[in-house]
Amino acid sequence: MSFEGLRVTALAGGVGAARMLRGLAAVTAEDNITAIVNTGDDTVLHGLYVCPDLDTITYTLGGSSNPATGWGIQGETWAVMEALGQFERLGLPGAGNLTWFGLGDRDLATHLFRTGRLAAGVPLSQVASEVATRFGVTARLLPMSDEPVRTMVELAGGTPVPSFGGLGRPCAPGTSGGATANEPAQGPTEVGFQEYFVGLRHSVDVTGLRFAGAERARPAPGVIEAIEQADVVVVCPSNPLVSIGPVLAVPGIAQAVAARRGSVVAVSPIVAGKALKGPADRMLSELGSEPSVVGVARLWSDIASTLVIDEADAALGPQVERAGMAFAVTKTVMSGPEDSARLAEVVLATASGAPGPGWR
Amino acid sequence: MSFEGLRVTALAGGVGAARMLRGLAAVTAEDNITAIVNTGDDTVLHGLYVCPDLDTITYTLGGSSNPATGWGIQGETWAVMEALGQFERLGLPGAGNLTWFGLGDRDLATHLFRTGRLAAGVPLSQVASEVATRFGVTARLLPMSDEPVRTMVELAGGTPVPSFGGLGRPCAPGTSGGATANEPAQGPTEVGFQEYFVGLRHSVDVTGLRFAGAERARPAPGVIEAIEQADVVVVCPSNPLVSIGPVLAVPGIAQAVAARRGSVVAVSPIVAGKALKGPADRMLSELGSEPSVVGVARLWSDIASTLVIDEADAALGPQVERAGMAFAVTKTVMSGPEDSARLAEVVLATASGAPGPGWR
Repeated sequence: MSFEGLRVTALAGGVGAARMLRGLAAVTAEDNITAIVNTGDDTVLHGLYVCPDLDTITYTLGGSSNPATGWGIQGETWAVMEALGQFERLGLPGAGNLTWFGLGDRDLATHLFRTGRLAAGVPLSQVASEVATRFGVTARLLPMSDEPVRTMVELAGGTPVPSFGGLGRPCAPGTSGGATANEPAQGPTEVGFQEYFVGLRHSVDVTGLRFAGAERARPAPGVIEAIEQADVVVVCPSNPLVSIGPVLAVPGIAQAVAARRGSVVAVSPIVAGKALKGPADRMLSELGSEPSVVGVARLWSDIASTLVIDEADAALGPQVERAGMAFAVTKTVMSGPEDSARLAEVVLATASGAPGPGWR
Repeated sequence: MSFEGLRVTALAGGVGAARMLRGLAAVTAEDNITAIVNTGDDTVLHGLYVCPDLDTITYTLGGSSNPATGWGIQGETWAVMEALGQFERLGLPGAGNLTWFGLGDRDLATHLFRTGRLAAGVPLSQVASEVATRFGVTARLLPMSDEPVRTMVELAGGTPVPSFGGLGRPCAPGTSGGATANEPAQGPTEVGFQEYFVGLRHSVDVTGLRFAGAERARPAPGVIEAIEQADVVVVCPSNPLVSIGPVLAVPGIAQAVAARRGSVVAVSPIVAGKALKGPADRMLSELGSEPSVVGVARLWSDIASTLVIDEADAALGPQVERAGMAFAVTKTVMSGPEDSARLAEVVLATASGAPGPGWR
């Protein structure tokens, strides 16, 4: 079955989405793919505007990603971070941990470029496209919005939070910093997503989530059209709450996806009750969802008609149906490019209504 | 003659001042030295707040400077700039030249640290002190002000100005950038100091200077006291117009120095009608001063009682006196640490009223 002419639009988070997109690019024409990427994870570090999900997808599709980690650049060096560590070792009062978020030298060039372009007034969506071009990516990578949306994580009371250095809005001396780019925490136990995910290694209990700024954000130019005009919409196997959640929180996007529900196929990020990467399983439990394909189906049944689940969860298929979604079963774990391509074929075949290799 | 107990305060620009300060630190107690450093050269590049003069002095006093250039860090690597060059080579419309201002990997760590600290609301004067500590500097390095002052250079009409990328105020997407950190140019031929100095290699004609923001700036905490309480105030051999000029443009500083005029010794940055480094000679001519020790004396006679001039200019001593300054003659060219120390001895001996080796 050929998917060459298919226009595919994907809702995407980080590493899982990057691997799914790499598979889609392998089995269809990469330049027919549009990814609508979560920017709720974005942060300002040492004055630099960092977009972890956009960069992970860019580096992966461009063949530059570090296969060992899934994020960052292959063959990366760390001269800047090592020199920053010299400041950290001084233990300057109030400076905090300065190297908690690793920024490799080549990765830093991306952040310097992006921050300089944003400072010149170029919208994030254009900068994302320029960065994609630099890495040889021909898929269209769109941030969910050109406006800032910040995923804020409420931690269980009493969670000790170390001092993370370098955060805050970049600013000139004599102007007030801190406030707008990194939304100020509401209450003592709320932190930005990267502080939770990287700084605390997501090993703390979460009691709530908030997408600060989402209500004022508009979909980036092209986002709604890409959903409306796609032959297939794919919800990538990303954390439903903190990767896909922010995308759907931008007014207009969830409605546009729901309007295409019959052409929307989602891939479960949960396999046998566990997240393949990251805290999705624990976070689902902590925030009142079932950490299973059934819980995922309940969250996504309004926007997607079909859920692709792993063979390990085949027995839960009927429950997925009762949650309102058709299901397809295949191997969803992507250990390498071949796995990604095969999963992409199943997803596209499922969406096209043709019985793919794993269709049941 | 011992200068160990002497409290020395210096007005300082970049490389020439750094070498003078290294000499002063060699012949007196480094922690009795306060340098009041020009920040009119500061710029925001790729979102990072860069302080060229503070850093040059810090790296030099800390023994980390690159002796070949006078600026930057010894043994520096350039991984980030090389990766940024990959963006530049794409020739993206509007992105401009991205590597016109070289930022080495270790130097970048300083800028990341500083920008993050400023974003956290720490004043520049405290950050300068923290950076000095990191590099083992025990002299007190004070920016002239914690508020932004930008040296803007008016170029002769018709000067072609290429597109310098990365400039402008760092900002979050969706907020307006550009305006406050890098003062907008007034008219088509005005550029920031670094665009003139580094970008255009100061090889264009200058028709005017402006210290944007100076009228609103306040001396950084400790600046006025350091001038008032010093035993000797040294005006370093820095460009009178664009290095010492901005310092004196901060309201209160010139008056405080003038009040100590009898204890103020200046070192001419002009030797035999030429600047040892940079465009001071041409700039003096272009802006109506004589490019000689006499022209320097006319600019500084209100704030300093004595001008130290090079042996090559000994014959101009009487004219320096007619311009209102005493003079001392010595070798002022600093080719290495020994030259710096010897010059420092002459400067301090001159200030102390004792006949130093070059006193006439």
